[in-house]
Amino acid sequence: MRARLSIDPAHQSAVPASDADATAHETAAETAARLLGALREQSPLTHCITNSVVTNVTANALLAIGAAPAMVDLTGEAGAFARVAGGLLVNLGTPHPEQRDAGREAVAAAAAAGTPWVLDPVAVGALPVRTALARELLAARPTAIRGNASEILALAGAGAGGRGVDAADRTDAAADAAAELAATHGSVVAVSGPVDLITDGVRTARIANGDALLTRITGGGCALGAVTAAFLATARTTGDDAFDATVAATAVYTVAAELASGRADGSAPVGPGTFGVRFLDALATVDAADLRARAHLTVTRAAAHADAAPALAAVAAGART
Amino acid sequence: MRARLSIDPAHQSAVPASDADATAHETAAETAARLLGALREQSPLTHCITNSVVTNVTANALLAIGAAPAMVDLTGEAGAFARVAGGLLVNLGTPHPEQRDAGREAVAAAAAAGTPWVLDPVAVGALPVRTALARELLAARPTAIRGNASEILALAGAGAGGRGVDAADRTDAAADAAAELAATHGSVVAVSGPVDLITDGVRTARIANGDALLTRITGGGCALGAVTAAFLATARTTGDDAFDATVAATAVYTVAAELASGRADGSAPVGPGTFGVRFLDALATVDAADLRARAHLTVTRAAAHADAAPALAAVAAGART
Amino acid sequence: MRARLSIDPAHQSAVPASDADATAHETAAETAARLLGALREQSPLTHCITNSVVTNVTANALLAIGAAPAMVDLTGEAGAFARVAGGLLVNLGTPHPEQRDAGREAVAAAAAAGTPWVLDPVAVGALPVRTALARELLAARPTAIRGNASEILALAGAGAGGRGVDAADRTDAAADAAAELAATHGSVVAVSGPVDLITDGVRTARIANGDALLTRITGGGCALGAVTAAFLATARTTGDDAFDATVAATAVYTVAAELASGRADGSAPVGPGTFGVRFLDALATVDAADLRARAHLTVTRAAAHADAAPALAAVAAGART
Repeated sequence: MRARLSIDPAHQSAVPASDADATAHETAAETAARLLGALREQSPLTHCITNSVVTNVTANALLAIGAAPAMVDLTGEAGAFARVAGGLLVNLGTPHPEQRDAGREAVAAAAAAGTPWVLDPVAVGALPVRTALARELLAARPTAIRGNASEILALAGAGAGGRGVDAADRTDAAADAAAELAATHGSVVAVSGPVDLITDGVRTARIANGDALLTRITGGGCALGAVTAAFLATARTTGDDAFDATVAATAVYTVAAELASGRADGSAPVGPGTFGVRFLDALATVDAADLRARAHLTVTRAAAHADAAPALAAVAAGART
Repeated sequence: MRARLSIDPAHQSAVPASDADATAHETAAETAARLLGALREQSPLTHCITNSVVTNVTANALLAIGAAPAMVDLTGEAGAFARVAGGLLVNLGTPHPEQRDAGREAVAAAAAAGTPWVLDPVAVGALPVRTALARELLAARPTAIRGNASEILALAGAGAGGRGVDAADRTDAAADAAAELAATHGSVVAVSGPVDLITDGVRTARIANGDALLTRITGGGCALGAVTAAFLATARTTGDDAFDATVAATAVYTVAAELASGRADGSAPVGPGTFGVRFLDALATVDAADLRARAHLTVTRAAAHADAAPALAAVAAGART
Repeated sequence: MRARLSIDPAHQSAVPASDADATAHETAAETAARLLGALREQSPLTHCITNSVVTNVTANALLAIGAAPAMVDLTGEAGAFARVAGGLLVNLGTPHPEQRDAGREAVAAAAAAGTPWVLDPVAVGALPVRTALARELLAARPTAIRGNASEILALAGAGAGGRGVDAADRTDAAADAAAELAATHGSVVAVSGPVDLITDGVRTARIANGDALLTRITGGGCALGAVTAAFLATARTTGDDAFDATVAATAVYTVAAELASGRADGSAPVGPGTFGVRFLDALATVDAADLRARAHLTVTRAAAHADAAPALAAVAAGART
């Protein structure tokens, strides 16, 4: 497993793997593939309240993967729309006053209606207005929270926050904070980084796909929050849980990024402009075979639970290929 | 005609054609070509008050086709600008409070100054704030109204509205609502879909160009509203009417989309990221020869008027090629 | 020198050159190359308060060149952020009420903290709200001002303003206004056009790079303001002055545009969609060798100062190559 990962030095996995994990891995990759297929059939209405920098690329990423985006961030509309949407994203990148109130309205409606929703606490910790809003929305128990390590640490009260929307590479440094956030708020917490970490407080997935180019285009992280909302919407109809949906979203998204980078087929990495274009193309075409062949995905369980569910422990992706 | 259209199964025309229509068709395609040439010469100042998701792609589409975009959506500026602009678009995709007031100011100024303006009632019917605003602006008699079938039905009071910005493929289901809107408000009404329908209440054009990829990128419909405003601006100087300008805008836009899709030259359809890039390229290069060779355009007249203008009845595009 | 420039008819230089200038030119090109290297090492946090049309492309341009963008335009956050940022851009393209107050807050904080900042007075002169705001912010003495000739003339009180964001090609017509603005406010003034002109009131650089395609994509000028802020941020740490940093930003940006256009390698010019993608790619790869080989850069001094610094007078770029 390590040997495989080492072909891309940007991706380091700290998770041990074994042959025994292969069966369970196939289940995880198949879950992602099945949810992707269901998403494309259903084209879930995905309600986004997001920042002004990434609205366009977020809508395009949702369209590319097969969802139906709707950017409704007005008071008087956001609540009604969150009730009928399949999933909701509230991203705090540029939370202007009207958008803050629309976010509150949408979250209250989503909570009441059972619409799954994602909180993306962009630059929380570093900036006061959004930090206060993030804490307020957190009390409404997001279905999922997506951020980089700095943001997750800050949201959990354990760090000083990032410097804007990028962050140092320290996904694992946020593992404890993520687990605590997850346990306290009943949320799935996804920490983006060279290795993505997703936890519900019991299970922890690590996904060593993606490409550093995702950090060279704006929206590389933010659009994943929206795609996660679309997978959560899909999971409502398939009976999958929020953890599996979030893992699936991240796996599909990062495998698509890898395909778009040019590295997947051994060609030279592309520039960031070309990558942005190819990434949308890849989101439209990534399929079950790509997930089976490329997903570097492990799932572990917290020690207290490991005995109860050995099949899920230390699941290694790609162990057979 | 049907045989030709059937090479692209996404495009079905319900309009009968005959050899006798060929002469009139050439006139329609030539009108579009002539207006496109005039637009590129004049580079009309095109004032856009549009939604936050598509501002960038809208401005880029206008620049690509040869117009001069200006996104002026502040109160205290929008009115003065609408008076001097060649044409105005008011798109209701994300009508924040300031933008709503700017839209009102711009529309009042445009009406007073004779600036042609386009209303794009995004997601009207489904969402209350914009629905009320659309009805208010409608009273100012837009030069043109552009929407999908759900939006046109909702605006005419005949439907429940779409689910956000996409819509089922039922352009013809909105034909009566479009004709009624046109007659009541003195507007040209353009219904986007696999076959675009444009009517002024008397004449009805159907354009079977474009590509389903236009629905896989955000702004595929919204940018057409802006391009229509640019053609209306051009028509002021050439003496063409709003119907011909709207038909020309749609024909040019959808032929460019077809060229960008890859299907026009028999190659495999491209992905949505690549399509977005190639579409801008195609808007910059689409020319009279492309329109003559590719526009699948028919114009009919309401029965009461057919005798008065036989040359315009059942005009079939591409009947000769 | 003229012979070289004449290979691209879009670029005309009115600046005489001589062999004696070669040494000084190498210094100018090397300064740009050195600052570019430092920027990529430091990835300066670049705070942008910019318009809704270009936020995405601006952030992407900064990421491509190696800076860290942060679009913080809320009151209650903009001031604190401007204090810690490396550089700040305030672009007045769509200055909504909240953004106007955030701009005021950020500029006051930048001035107090010594954060270099760029004012981009989009469409000033033509539109009243932003014109008043531009004059107010001007009093806080921007480190640099970037605009097209119409905007610089209007800001200096010498012209009626442009029609939106484009402008006639008359960079040199704004030379006196630029010098006056520079002298009055202690700012470096950069006038974008076929030949870019940059002056601090004493030195004047002219850069005959770039490509007309920069005017066919939205953000072609606005993103340069952000890149200038990133170079100013870098110059704080290297000890270079604001004039050299602004010249370096413009040279790097316009050489990248030239590489992206297709003209640099003798191939056919690309369309505007393709150009936008390739431009981001080129910003990521443009390097010292490109600057040495391609920068068409001259620096002159006002007559009163010419004797004091002969080495800087009439510096011609590319004289040796």
